[in-house]
Order: sequence, then structure tokens, then C-alpha cells
Amino acid sequence: MKALYFDNAATTQMTGKVVQSILNYQTYRFANASSLYKLGEMSKEGLDKAREKISSFLGCASEEIIFTSGGTESNNMALKGVLSSGDHVIVSKIEHDSVLKVCSALEKEGVEVSTIGVDKEGFVNMDELSSAFKDNTKLVSVMHANNEIGVIQDIDAIGKVCHEKGVLFHTDAVQSFCKVKIPLENVDFVSISAHKIHGPKGVGALYVKKGVKIKALIEGGGHEFGLRSGTENVPSIVGFGEAVKDMKIAVVKLRDKIIESVLKIEGSWLNGSKGKRLPNNAHFGFKNIEGEALVLKLDENGIMTSTGSACSSKSLEPSHVLIALGLNKADAHGSLRITLSEYTKEEDVDRLLETLPKCVEELRSSRAK
Amino acid sequence: MKALYFDNAATTQMTGKVVQSILNYQTYRFANASSLYKLGEMSKEGLDKAREKISSFLGCASEEIIFTSGGTESNNMALKGVLSSGDHVIVSKIEHDSVLKVCSALEKEGVEVSTIGVDKEGFVNMDELSSAFKDNTKLVSVMHANNEIGVIQDIDAIGKVCHEKGVLFHTDAVQSFCKVKIPLENVDFVSISAHKIHGPKGVGALYVKKGVKIKALIEGGGHEFGLRSGTENVPSIVGFGEAVKDMKIAVVKLRDKIIESVLKIEGSWLNGSKGKRLPNNAHFGFKNIEGEALVLKLDENGIMTSTGSACSSKSLEPSHVLIALGLNKADAHGSLRITLSEYTKEEDVDRLLETLPKCVEELRSSRAK
Repeated sequence: MKALYFDNAATTQMTGKVVQSILNYQTYRFANASSLYKLGEMSKEGLDKAREKISSFLGCASEEIIFTSGGTESNNMALKGVLSSGDHVIVSKIEHDSVLKVCSALEKEGVEVSTIGVDKEGFVNMDELSSAFKDNTKLVSVMHANNEIGVIQDIDAIGKVCHEKGVLFHTDAVQSFCKVKIPLENVDFVSISAHKIHGPKGVGALYVKKGVKIKALIEGGGHEFGLRSGTENVPSIVGFGEAVKDMKIAVVKLRDKIIESVLKIEGSWLNGSKGKRLPNNAHFGFKNIEGEALVLKLDENGIMTSTGSACSSKSLEPSHVLIALGLNKADAHGSLRITLSEYTKEEDVDRLLETLPKCVEELRSSRAK
Repeated sequence: MKALYFDNAATTQMTGKVVQSILNYQTYRFANASSLYKLGEMSKEGLDKAREKISSFLGCASEEIIFTSGGTESNNMALKGVLSSGDHVIVSKIEHDSVLKVCSALEKEGVEVSTIGVDKEGFVNMDELSSAFKDNTKLVSVMHANNEIGVIQDIDAIGKVCHEKGVLFHTDAVQSFCKVKIPLENVDFVSISAHKIHGPKGVGALYVKKGVKIKALIEGGGHEFGLRSGTENVPSIVGFGEAVKDMKIAVVKLRDKIIESVLKIEGSWLNGSKGKRLPNNAHFGFKNIEGEALVLKLDENGIMTSTGSACSSKSLEPSHVLIALGLNKADAHGSLRITLSEYTKEEDVDRLLETLPKCVEELRSSRAK
């Protein structure tokens, strides 16, 4: 039985093209990009070309891209690089832990933190945002697309509000990058990651708008325009550049097929907005089901899914995102995230849709005993 | 003409075995190590085994190894994770920029910094160290082996002094790891990196002694025992584990052959102690030579070397390490670092030793014109 992978929000499988591009820089063009000799220059060229590919895809200048070790580091850098004791930051309740936990840490160092709620579809409450600003507000951080429920925020509108108040705006676009256009006009910092788009793990970037000041999180040799030191991870950066492209729109049809079919299961519902969600994300709740048990049951049937975020998949706490939507603890525990890639085949989706109702049924009947 | 690589302190070429081990986790075992299904467990297994390999090589418990994105991050974490405003830190003048620049940044945030000098061979002045301690001294950071001149410090003795004073001790062992035994007994934190030992770029670790408190630098999903968040870079971590082994002692003979031969060139000298230096490091000074010109001239002849640190190779400032040894600016500019790997062949060394005197001669005669 072929194992089917439906957890592309957790991580993705690299494509052959990406693997090849990395191999070339792992084996032949392996020099340190700061070295003076020709082999070093070749590494530098690979680095520059990848930066160019990513910046032109995003629609920014290449020197606005700072390579990091991934989305979590980018989020940490955006917050810790801007905020100091006495500053105020506003974040949404459904941010990733790499924003929320940083806020908790900064709070201990004298940064004021306000969290704003979302409505039952998952959208940030704009009135709450507007009234959260204070004289010392320095930064707002609201993610572009949520990693669990896939809801896409109107970051252009949020950024406008911030800029009207003279406040910087950061968005965590790790999940939306290459899936939805990221409007940069009203955004100052954007976090992106390679391993969510069929690129390698351990590499990401922070877009830093020209002229916007930020401190380095990792200091040393002065790499990345002085903003991120450490020998450049050229092979992975090259693979990151190679991975960047728009997700094919065909994915949306498969997602909608899944949503339509799964909602026919009794006691099921869709978490997050139906209209404004990632093209590859379907996130459900099931009455009288433990999400973790469902994930394991599906795995027995060769189907890989998630309850929500991979980062907290082993935690016993209910998802803070689902609680923010207004779900009770029991309902928040009965969740299943199905995330597609552009390489997902319709026949695989069909097998998922055949298997899932049976698994739900089995779990419910064993519970009823 | 085969190009010869003598810059293994800057970075190394991965071995086929390391590349294969990474490929396996890049392509087949690609899942997120936090995922619940079997493929996720396989990633977790790869991660655990690599941690086990590295910890047993170092002689510590596996939970004392925290994976990071590299040596620079490890150094940043050790210093920023321990020091707060009001604390005092002591570092040597010859530390890597990823320690010195962090100290400058911490100084602006209210941390007191003392730098201690080295003698003309490159050894930390122990009297200066002893008298540098204050009531608020929290940490001492002295590198195990210097990245430019390869001098090995007696970190066991330094650590003892620190512990007698109740002060934590960190050592940057990026250059010594797998080349010289790292004595852990009197050390609290050790930075290591994969790409200096024929492993991949973009991965390193910080050894954190059991029971010693340190804050996370990168927060989020709580990976790495809560000390370093971000989806684990399992392929590179597996490659790191695969790369760990003692450097063959045969390298020392080649190094000594190089030192003996190069010192016959008129107006040449060895920088750093002859006895206590890395088995793969030879670092020379040449009167009336610009190091950068020599590196480029050697590259024309298919031989890759460095003036010193790759990180600052494009800087016009003289090496802070050579200045700390007492060299004047002119002499500090005339440096050449030759660093071997255990795969360096004697015939390659012979070609280097034939070529180098000619290059020095050529450069001097064109200068004399």
C-alpha cells in the first residue's frame, strides 16, 4: 500500500530539481562564499542568484532579503530586533508559537504585549486592532496565513492601519509564501521558509524593507549585510531559490473536493473561513473524536495527516488557535488538518476520502462501547 | 591542472558518506520530526541517533547537546543566553567575531566586558585572567583553538580558574572539534559546527552542561528541550552525526613538512605556537608581502588558501588576532593560512611547497620595481 502524505503544512518533500541544485553546491561548489579564490566566488554567485530569484519573486530588492535558518528564526529576529524595554507590541491570538513565545520572553524584559482576538472564521478583529494602539506601540505582528486553519488575513489593510499610526508591521508568511501573493506595500518585515515549499529544512529569510531599522539577532562576521552572521549555508540557500514558484491553482479543486466530501460526515465541520483560506489547507473538527487517535488510525491506513501544528503535535493542550475561534476544549481536541501539495494526485485524494469516514466511524463506535 | 584546496578552516568538502546520509533524509525520510505518524518517528530516530553519536564522541549525555544553525549561533546563544545587564564577562582578544561582536552588542545593553591579552605565541595570559574577575563576573569565554593561527588554549586550566571563582566558562571549539580532544570537566558550554569537519553547512550545536541554566536565543515550538525552537533540520543533523570522528594523526606530518619548508623562505615566520597548534593549521607571515595578493597569486596557480579568517577576508582591517600577538600592521597584512584536511595528499602538499616560494618571489620582485 502506497503511503500518502497529506501534511504539507508541517513540511514538504524536496523535488528532484531542488535536491540536484543542493548537491551541486554540497559537493563541487563547496567553498566558503567569503573566500577570495574563484571557488569562493562561485559560492558567492550561487548565493547572489538565489537571493535575486527570491527577491524578484517577492517583488523587492535583493538586499531586502536576509537569509536565516528558517521561519522561527525570522520571526524571532523581527520581534527581538525591533522591540526593547518600554516598547509596546500588538499580536493576534492565533500567531505561531515562534511569535507568541517570543512575546512572553520579551514581556519579562519590559516589553508591553497586547493580543487581539479573531472572529469565529479566524479573521483578526480590526476594531480591536485599532483600539489596541498606544503611544509606545512600536510593532504589530499578524501572520499572513494561519498554519493550522489556513485562514488568510488582509495584511494589506492591517499594514495600512499600522502605517497610519506610524507603527512597523511584521507578517509571518511561512505558510502563504508561494501559495498566495504577499502584498509588500504596507509591510515592513516578512518571514518565509524553504521547507514548506519543497525546499530544504534549515533555511528561511526575513524581508526587511529598505530604510527600516532592525538589530541583528545573530552577530559575528557581518554576513547578510551585517544583519545575520555565520558562514552562509549556500547549498540550502541555492535549494531555497530553486524551490520558489507559484503553487499550481489545480490544488484548490482538490481541496474543495475534500471539504465537500468530509463535511458529509455526521458531526463534522470546517475550521476557519471557507472563502479566504490557503489553497492547500482543509481543517476539520469532528464531534466525539480525539484528533490524535484519528491521525494514528489514518496512519495505520497509510495516510499521513496532522491534528494541527506539527510543533505542538505532542502537546496535550488544546490548540490556542481553535480556542481563539471560540471552540470548547472537547471540540478543539477533535481536529484534523489535511494539507496538500501541488504534487498531490486526485487518486490519492480519493483514497483519503474513502478511508477517512471509515476511520471516524470506527473510532466513534469503539468509544461508544 | 587539478585545483588544490588548502582552506579547511574556512569550510570543508563533504564526504560521500555524509552526502548519502543527508540525501536519505532529504528525499525519503523527509517528515517533520514532531509529526505523530511513522514517517515522523523515523525522522525523530535520525535526530536522536545523531545526537547520540555526537554526545558519545564528546563524552557527555545526549540531552546536553542542543542543535543550532552553526557555530556563530552557538556562540551567540552561549553569551546572550547567560548575560544580562549588570553582568560582567571576560573574553580573550583573539576570540572569533561571533564572540567579540556579541560582546560589543551586549555592552550597549549594560553588560560589562573585559578583554584579556595573549602572549606572542597566542596563549591567554593567565595572570591577566585571574585579575580580571569581579564580583559581577558571570561568564568567561575563551576559544579552544584559534581559527586563524590554530593555537590551542589550555581550556581545562582556564575552566578550573573560572569554577574556583564560581563563574561559568564557555569555549568556542568550532576549529578544534574532531581535531583535538575537548576536555569537558571544567567547561559549561561548548560551541561546535558541522561544516568544519566535512559535514554540511547550516548546522552546529551547543553543549550545555546538565544543570547549568541558559535562556533560549530562538524561541517558539519548544524544540531541543525548549532551548532552540524551529523545525529540526534533520537531514543536516544526520549529516553532522555522520561526519563526527577523530582526524587522522597523519595530518600532523604534512603540517610539519609545510612549516619546515615554508620557514626556509627568506623573511617568513610562523604565527602562533609551534607546539600547541591544530594538527591541520600552518599560518605564516611574510615580510613585504600583501596576504591578499599572495592568496590570489596562489589561486592563479590552482591553490586555494586564505589570509586568515574567511569571515573577514574581504575586510581591509588587519587581523585582530595578529595585532593581539604584537605584530605591526604591515606584518599583520602579510599573512597566509594553510589548513589541511585528513584527505589532503602528500603530492598536493609537494605542489604547494614548490609553488609558494615562486609566488612570494614574484610578488616581492614586482613590488621592488
